[in-house]
Amino acid sequence: MKALVERIKREGEHVGGGIVKVDGFLNHQVDAELTYAMGEELVRRFSKQGVSGITKVVSAEVSGIPVALAVARILGVPMIYARKHRSSVMTDVYYFAQAHSRTQDEQTHLMISKKYLKSQDRVIVIDDFLATGSTVTALGTLIVESGATLCAIGCVIEKPQEGGREKLASFGVPVEALSKIELIGDELSVS
Amino acid sequence: MKALVERIKREGEHVGGGIVKVDGFLNHQVDAELTYAMGEELVRRFSKQGVSGITKVVSAEVSGIPVALAVARILGVPMIYARKHRSSVMTDVYYFAQAHSRTQDEQTHLMISKKYLKSQDRVIVIDDFLATGSTVTALGTLIVESGATLCAIGCVIEKPQEGGREKLASFGVPVEALSKIELIGDELSVS
Repeated sequence: MKALVERIKREGEHVGGGIVKVDGFLNHQVDAELTYAMGEELVRRFSKQGVSGITKVVSAEVSGIPVALAVARILGVPMIYARKHRSSVMTDVYYFAQAHSRTQDEQTHLMISKKYLKSQDRVIVIDDFLATGSTVTALGTLIVESGATLCAIGCVIEKPQEGGREKLASFGVPVEALSKIELIGDELSVS
Repeated sequence: MKALVERIKREGEHVGGGIVKVDGFLNHQVDAELTYAMGEELVRRFSKQGVSGITKVVSAEVSGIPVALAVARILGVPMIYARKHRSSVMTDVYYFAQAHSRTQDEQTHLMISKKYLKSQDRVIVIDDFLATGSTVTALGTLIVESGATLCAIGCVIEKPQEGGREKLASFGVPVEALSKIELIGDELSVS
Protein backbone atom coordinates (compact mmCIF):
# COMPACT_ATOMS: atom_id res chain seq x y z
CA MET A 1 0.00 0.00 0.00
CA LYS A 2 1.79 3.04 -1.36
CA ALA A 3 0.69 5.75 1.11
CA LEU A 4 1.63 3.50 4.01
CA VAL A 5 5.00 2.48 2.57
CA GLU A 6 5.91 6.12 1.99
CA ARG A 7 4.89 7.01 5.53
CA ILE A 8 7.02 4.24 7.01
CA LYS A 9 9.98 5.34 4.90
CA ARG A 10 9.54 8.93 6.00
CA GLU A 11 8.79 8.41 9.69
CA GLY A 12 9.77 4.85 10.68
CA GLU A 13 12.62 4.84 13.17
CA HIS A 14 14.90 1.85 13.46
CA VAL A 15 15.56 1.56 17.20
CA GLY A 16 17.84 -1.48 16.86
CA GLY A 17 17.40 -5.24 16.52
CA GLY A 18 15.15 -4.80 13.51
CA ILE A 19 12.48 -3.12 15.65
CA VAL A 20 10.92 -0.21 13.82
CA LYS A 21 9.09 2.48 15.68
CA VAL A 22 6.08 3.96 13.92
CA ASP A 23 4.71 5.99 16.81
CA GLY A 24 3.88 8.96 14.58
CA PHE A 25 0.91 7.31 12.83
CA LEU A 26 0.33 3.76 14.13
CA ASN A 27 1.45 2.96 17.68
CA HIS A 28 1.03 6.09 19.79
CA GLN A 29 -0.22 8.87 17.58
CA VAL A 30 -2.70 7.47 15.07
CA ASP A 31 -3.47 8.92 11.65
CA ALA A 32 -7.24 8.39 11.58
CA GLU A 33 -7.59 8.91 7.83
CA LEU A 34 -4.72 6.59 6.89
CA THR A 35 -6.12 4.01 9.33
CA TYR A 36 -9.46 4.02 7.54
CA ALA A 37 -7.74 3.74 4.16
CA MET A 38 -5.79 0.74 5.49
CA GLY A 39 -9.08 -0.84 6.53
CA GLU A 40 -10.48 -0.30 3.04
CA GLU A 41 -7.43 -1.82 1.41
CA LEU A 42 -7.55 -4.90 3.67
CA VAL A 43 -11.25 -5.40 2.94
CA ARG A 44 -10.59 -5.06 -0.81
CA ARG A 45 -7.86 -7.70 -0.65
CA PHE A 46 -9.91 -10.11 1.48
CA SER A 47 -12.77 -9.79 -0.96
CA LYS A 48 -10.41 -10.56 -3.89
CA GLN A 49 -9.38 -13.71 -2.02
CA GLY A 50 -13.02 -14.78 -1.80
CA VAL A 51 -13.34 -14.13 1.93
CA SER A 52 -17.03 -13.56 2.69
CA GLY A 53 -19.76 -13.76 5.29
CA ILE A 54 -17.58 -12.27 8.05
CA THR A 55 -19.42 -11.72 11.35
CA LYS A 56 -16.60 -10.53 13.67
CA VAL A 57 -13.24 -8.80 13.50
CA VAL A 58 -10.84 -9.78 16.27
CA SER A 59 -7.71 -7.97 17.44
CA ALA A 60 -5.71 -7.65 20.64
CA GLU A 61 -5.22 -4.58 22.79
CA VAL A 62 -3.70 -2.10 22.10
CA SER A 63 -2.16 -1.22 18.77
CA GLY A 64 -4.29 -3.39 16.52
CA ILE A 65 -7.52 -1.73 17.64
CA PRO A 66 -7.69 1.26 15.26
CA VAL A 67 -7.27 -0.66 12.00
CA ALA A 68 -9.42 -3.56 13.26
CA LEU A 69 -12.15 -1.02 14.02
CA ALA A 70 -11.89 0.41 10.51
CA VAL A 71 -12.25 -3.07 8.97
CA ALA A 72 -15.22 -3.80 11.25
CA ARG A 73 -16.96 -0.56 10.33
CA ILE A 74 -16.50 -1.17 6.60
CA LEU A 75 -17.85 -4.73 6.94
CA GLY A 76 -20.66 -3.62 9.27
CA VAL A 77 -19.75 -6.11 12.01
CA PRO A 78 -18.55 -5.82 15.62
CA MET A 79 -14.87 -5.73 16.55
CA ILE A 80 -13.61 -7.63 19.58
CA TYR A 81 -10.29 -6.78 21.18
CA ALA A 82 -8.76 -9.52 23.28
CA ARG A 83 -7.90 -8.24 26.75
CA LYS A 84 -4.42 -8.64 28.16
CA HIS A 85 -5.04 -7.35 31.65
CA ARG A 86 -7.62 -8.69 34.02
CA SER A 87 -9.91 -6.18 35.67
CA SER A 88 -12.59 -6.45 38.33
CA VAL A 89 -15.25 -6.05 35.63
CA MET A 90 -14.17 -9.20 33.81
CA THR A 91 -16.71 -11.54 35.34
CA ASP A 92 -17.44 -13.64 32.22
CA VAL A 93 -15.98 -16.98 31.25
CA TYR A 94 -13.08 -16.45 28.86
CA TYR A 95 -11.14 -18.19 26.14
CA PHE A 96 -7.44 -17.83 26.97
CA ALA A 97 -4.36 -18.00 24.80
CA GLN A 98 -0.77 -17.19 25.56
CA ALA A 99 1.42 -14.92 23.45
CA HIS A 100 4.85 -13.41 23.86
CA SER A 101 5.31 -9.67 23.46
CA ARG A 102 8.76 -8.88 22.16
CA THR A 103 8.64 -5.15 22.73
CA GLN A 104 7.41 -5.58 26.30
CA ASP A 105 9.44 -8.79 26.81
CA GLU A 106 6.73 -10.67 28.63
CA GLN A 107 4.26 -13.48 28.29
CA THR A 108 0.75 -12.13 27.89
CA HIS A 109 -2.56 -13.87 28.20
CA LEU A 110 -5.11 -12.92 25.61
CA MET A 111 -8.70 -13.26 26.79
CA ILE A 112 -11.97 -13.17 24.87
CA SER A 113 -15.31 -13.63 26.58
CA LYS A 114 -17.23 -16.73 25.52
CA LYS A 115 -20.24 -14.44 25.13
CA TYR A 116 -18.86 -12.83 21.99
CA LEU A 117 -17.39 -15.72 20.02
CA LYS A 118 -19.81 -18.41 18.90
CA SER A 119 -19.43 -21.47 16.67
CA GLN A 120 -21.38 -19.79 13.87
CA ASP A 121 -19.01 -16.80 13.76
CA ARG A 122 -16.78 -16.19 10.75
CA VAL A 123 -13.78 -14.19 11.89
CA ILE A 124 -11.00 -12.00 10.51
CA VAL A 125 -7.98 -11.37 12.74
CA ILE A 126 -6.31 -7.98 12.41
CA ASP A 127 -3.13 -6.74 14.07
CA ASP A 128 -0.63 -3.95 13.55
CA PHE A 129 2.53 -6.08 13.20
CA LEU A 130 3.14 -9.58 11.92
CA ALA A 131 6.64 -10.44 13.14
CA THR A 132 7.13 -13.79 14.90
CA GLY A 133 3.38 -14.31 14.63
CA SER A 134 2.99 -14.96 18.34
CA THR A 135 -0.01 -12.70 18.94
CA VAL A 136 -1.85 -13.67 15.76
CA THR A 137 -1.20 -17.38 16.34
CA ALA A 138 -2.61 -17.03 19.86
CA LEU A 139 -5.71 -15.24 18.53
CA GLY A 140 -6.17 -17.79 15.76
CA THR A 141 -5.84 -20.72 18.18
CA LEU A 142 -8.33 -19.12 20.54
CA ILE A 143 -10.82 -18.62 17.69
CA VAL A 144 -10.46 -22.23 16.51
CA GLU A 145 -10.93 -23.38 20.11
CA SER A 146 -14.18 -21.38 20.34
CA GLY A 147 -15.56 -23.32 17.38
CA ALA A 148 -15.78 -20.18 15.25
CA THR A 149 -14.24 -20.16 11.76
CA LEU A 150 -11.05 -18.24 11.17
CA CYS A 151 -11.37 -16.87 7.61
CA ALA A 152 -8.46 -14.49 7.11
CA ILE A 153 -5.63 -12.61 8.78
CA GLY A 154 -4.55 -9.04 8.05
CA CYS A 155 -1.77 -6.86 9.33
CA VAL A 156 -0.37 -3.42 8.68
CA ILE A 157 3.35 -4.23 8.69
CA GLU A 158 4.90 -7.63 8.14
CA LYS A 159 8.48 -8.44 9.02
CA PRO A 160 9.02 -11.50 6.83
CA GLN A 161 12.42 -12.30 8.31
CA GLU A 162 10.83 -13.22 11.64
CA GLY A 163 8.88 -16.14 10.24
CA GLY A 164 5.36 -15.23 11.30
CA ARG A 165 3.78 -16.08 7.96
CA GLU A 166 5.22 -19.61 8.01
CA LYS A 167 3.86 -20.09 11.52
CA LEU A 168 0.38 -19.05 10.36
CA ALA A 169 0.37 -21.41 7.35
CA SER A 170 -1.25 -24.20 9.38
CA PHE A 171 -4.44 -22.11 9.68
CA GLY A 172 -4.82 -22.38 5.90
CA VAL A 173 -6.33 -18.91 5.44
CA PRO A 174 -5.28 -15.85 3.41
CA VAL A 175 -2.73 -13.64 5.17
CA GLU A 176 -2.61 -10.06 3.92
CA ALA A 177 0.08 -7.54 4.84
CA LEU A 178 -0.17 -3.91 3.73
CA SER A 179 3.61 -3.40 3.89
CA LYS A 180 6.84 -5.24 4.59
CA ILE A 181 9.94 -4.23 6.47
CA GLU A 182 13.19 -6.12 6.05
CA LEU A 183 16.58 -5.49 7.55
CA ILE A 184 19.34 -5.73 4.96
CA GLY A 185 22.61 -5.24 6.75
CA ASP A 186 21.89 -2.22 8.94
CA GLU A 187 19.47 -0.72 6.46
CA LEU A 188 15.70 -1.01 6.47
CA SER A 189 14.01 -2.02 3.25
CA VAL A 190 10.32 -1.03 3.16
CA SER A 191 7.98 -2.30 0.46
CA MET B 1 -27.76 10.17 23.17
CA LYS B 2 -30.77 7.98 22.68
CA ALA B 3 -29.27 4.99 20.81
CA LEU B 4 -26.53 4.76 23.43
CA VAL B 5 -28.86 5.09 26.41
CA GLU B 6 -31.06 2.32 25.03
CA ARG B 7 -28.06 0.10 24.46
CA ILE B 8 -26.82 0.59 28.03
CA LYS B 9 -30.30 -0.15 29.37
CA ARG B 10 -30.52 -3.31 27.29
CA GLU B 11 -26.98 -4.65 27.75
CA GLY B 12 -25.33 -2.89 30.68
CA GLU B 13 -24.62 -5.26 33.54
CA HIS B 14 -24.33 -4.00 37.09
CA VAL B 15 -21.50 -6.05 38.57
CA GLY B 16 -21.71 -4.41 42.01
CA GLY B 17 -20.38 -1.24 43.61
CA GLY B 18 -21.98 0.90 40.93
CA ILE B 19 -19.63 -0.56 38.31
CA VAL B 20 -21.47 -1.19 35.06
CA LYS B 21 -20.09 -3.54 32.50
CA VAL B 22 -20.68 -2.61 28.87
CA ASP B 23 -18.45 -5.23 27.26
CA GLY B 24 -20.96 -5.94 24.49
CA PHE B 25 -20.43 -2.66 22.62
CA LEU B 26 -17.82 -0.48 24.36
CA ASN B 27 -15.17 -2.22 26.47
CA HIS B 28 -14.40 -5.57 24.87
CA GLN B 29 -16.65 -6.03 21.87
CA VAL B 30 -17.02 -2.69 20.08
CA ASP B 31 -19.97 -1.63 17.94
CA ALA B 32 -18.11 0.18 15.14
CA GLU B 33 -21.19 1.96 13.80
CA LEU B 34 -22.41 3.18 17.20
CA THR B 35 -18.84 4.29 17.98
CA TYR B 36 -18.79 6.48 14.89
CA ALA B 37 -22.21 7.92 15.73
CA MET B 38 -20.92 8.75 19.23
CA GLY B 39 -17.99 10.57 17.63
CA GLU B 40 -20.38 12.58 15.46
CA GLU B 41 -22.54 13.50 18.43
CA LEU B 42 -19.54 14.63 20.49
CA VAL B 43 -18.24 16.76 17.60
CA ARG B 44 -21.72 18.30 17.17
CA ARG B 45 -21.87 19.21 20.86
CA PHE B 46 -18.33 20.62 20.96
CA SER B 47 -19.09 22.75 17.94
CA LYS B 48 -22.27 24.06 19.65
CA GLN B 49 -20.09 25.04 22.62
CA GLY B 50 -17.86 27.07 20.31
CA VAL B 51 -14.93 24.66 20.46
CA SER B 52 -12.83 25.17 17.32
CA GLY B 53 -9.39 24.90 15.77
CA ILE B 54 -8.70 21.48 17.31
CA THR B 55 -5.38 19.92 16.21
CA LYS B 56 -5.23 16.73 18.34
CA VAL B 57 -7.53 14.29 20.07
CA VAL B 58 -6.03 12.64 23.15
CA SER B 59 -7.17 9.49 24.94
CA ALA B 60 -5.61 6.77 27.07
CA GLU B 61 -5.22 3.11 26.25
CA VAL B 62 -7.37 1.05 25.97
CA SER B 63 -11.10 1.65 26.04
CA GLY B 64 -11.15 5.29 25.03
CA ILE B 65 -9.38 4.61 21.74
CA PRO B 66 -12.32 3.70 19.46
CA VAL B 67 -14.46 6.78 20.17
CA ALA B 68 -11.39 9.06 20.26
CA LEU B 69 -10.45 7.73 16.84
CA ALA B 70 -13.95 8.47 15.53
CA VAL B 71 -13.76 12.07 16.80
CA ALA B 72 -10.29 12.46 15.28
CA ARG B 73 -11.41 11.15 11.90
CA ILE B 74 -14.42 13.48 11.82
CA LEU B 75 -12.24 16.48 12.74
CA GLY B 76 -9.46 15.41 10.34
CA VAL B 77 -6.75 15.46 13.01
CA PRO B 78 -4.48 12.82 14.60
CA MET B 79 -5.44 10.90 17.73
CA ILE B 80 -2.86 10.22 20.43
CA TYR B 81 -3.39 7.50 22.99
CA ALA B 82 -1.38 7.85 26.17
CA ARG B 83 0.57 4.69 26.91
CA LYS B 84 0.25 2.95 30.25
CA HIS B 85 2.91 0.31 29.79
CA ARG B 86 6.51 0.97 28.91
CA SER B 87 7.97 -1.00 26.04
CA SER B 88 11.45 -1.26 24.59
CA VAL B 89 10.35 0.86 21.64
CA MET B 90 9.51 3.84 23.85
CA THR B 91 12.77 5.70 23.38
CA ASP B 92 11.35 9.24 23.28
CA VAL B 93 11.11 11.77 26.08
CA TYR B 94 7.64 11.61 27.63
CA TYR B 95 5.18 13.70 29.57
CA PHE B 96 4.03 11.63 32.54
CA ALA B 97 0.93 11.82 34.69
CA GLN B 98 -0.39 9.48 37.32
CA ALA B 99 -3.93 8.11 37.42
CA HIS B 100 -5.73 5.50 39.47
CA SER B 101 -7.64 2.75 37.73
CA ARG B 102 -10.55 1.59 39.81
CA THR B 103 -11.39 -1.49 37.78
CA GLN B 104 -7.78 -2.64 37.78
CA ASP B 105 -7.13 -1.25 41.28
CA GLU B 106 -3.70 0.15 40.49
CA GLN B 107 -1.82 3.37 39.94
CA THR B 108 -1.04 3.84 36.28
CA HIS B 109 1.37 6.19 34.61
CA LEU B 110 0.07 7.82 31.48
CA MET B 111 2.79 8.74 29.00
CA ILE B 112 2.70 10.91 25.90
CA SER B 113 5.79 11.53 23.80
CA LYS B 114 6.93 15.15 23.71
CA LYS B 115 7.16 14.75 19.93
CA TYR B 116 3.40 14.73 19.50
CA LEU B 117 2.18 17.45 21.87
CA LYS B 118 3.36 20.98 21.14
CA SER B 119 2.50 24.35 22.64
CA GLN B 120 0.51 25.33 19.54
CA ASP B 121 -1.74 22.27 19.83
CA ARG B 122 -5.43 22.63 20.67
CA VAL B 123 -6.62 19.43 22.26
CA ILE B 124 -9.82 17.52 23.01
CA VAL B 125 -9.61 14.73 25.59
CA ILE B 126 -11.89 11.73 25.03
CA ASP B 127 -12.44 8.72 27.28
CA ASP B 128 -15.02 5.99 27.67
CA PHE B 129 -15.98 6.64 31.33
CA LEU B 130 -16.02 9.76 33.46
CA ALA B 131 -16.32 8.45 37.03
CA THR B 132 -13.87 9.85 39.63
CA GLY B 133 -12.20 11.76 36.81
CA SER B 134 -8.78 10.36 37.63
CA THR B 135 -7.73 9.43 34.07
CA VAL B 136 -9.13 12.56 32.44
CA THR B 137 -7.58 14.81 35.13
CA ALA B 138 -4.22 13.13 34.53
CA LEU B 139 -4.53 13.63 30.76
CA GLY B 140 -5.64 17.26 31.20
CA THR B 141 -2.76 18.00 33.57
CA LEU B 142 -0.30 16.42 31.17
CA ILE B 143 -1.65 18.52 28.28
CA VAL B 144 -1.44 21.74 30.30
CA GLU B 145 2.12 20.83 31.30
CA SER B 146 3.04 20.37 27.63
CA GLY B 147 2.00 23.96 26.96
CA ALA B 148 -0.78 22.84 24.61
CA THR B 149 -4.32 24.17 25.10
CA LEU B 150 -6.97 21.87 26.52
CA CYS B 151 -10.19 22.90 24.77
CA ALA B 152 -12.82 20.31 25.72
CA ILE B 153 -13.45 16.96 27.33
CA GLY B 154 -15.83 14.28 26.11
CA CYS B 155 -16.86 10.91 27.45
CA VAL B 156 -19.29 8.17 26.57
CA ILE B 157 -20.69 7.40 30.03
CA GLU B 158 -20.61 9.72 33.03
CA LYS B 159 -21.22 8.53 36.57
CA PRO B 160 -22.12 11.84 38.21
CA GLN B 161 -22.18 10.38 41.71
CA GLU B 162 -18.43 9.84 41.62
CA GLY B 163 -17.61 13.54 41.34
CA GLY B 164 -15.46 13.52 38.20
CA ARG B 165 -17.15 16.58 36.69
CA GLU B 166 -16.46 18.70 39.80
CA LYS B 167 -12.81 17.64 39.68
CA LEU B 168 -12.55 18.75 36.06
CA ALA B 169 -14.12 22.17 36.70
CA SER B 170 -10.71 23.76 37.34
CA PHE B 171 -9.78 23.20 33.69
CA GLY B 172 -12.57 25.61 32.72
CA VAL B 173 -13.51 23.79 29.52
CA PRO B 174 -16.77 22.21 28.26
CA VAL B 175 -17.32 18.65 29.50
CA GLU B 176 -19.70 16.58 27.37
CA ALA B 177 -21.11 13.19 28.38
CA LEU B 178 -23.22 11.16 25.96
CA SER B 179 -25.01 9.31 28.78
CA LYS B 180 -25.25 9.14 32.55
CA ILE B 181 -25.50 6.21 34.91
CA GLU B 182 -26.63 6.68 38.49
CA LEU B 183 -27.19 4.16 41.21
CA ILE B 184 -30.48 4.75 43.00
CA GLY B 185 -30.72 2.21 45.76
CA ASP B 186 -29.71 -1.00 44.02
CA GLU B 187 -31.16 0.12 40.71
CA LEU B 188 -29.31 1.69 37.81
CA SER B 189 -30.78 4.83 36.31
CA VAL B 190 -29.54 5.46 32.78
CA SER B 191 -30.18 8.74 30.97
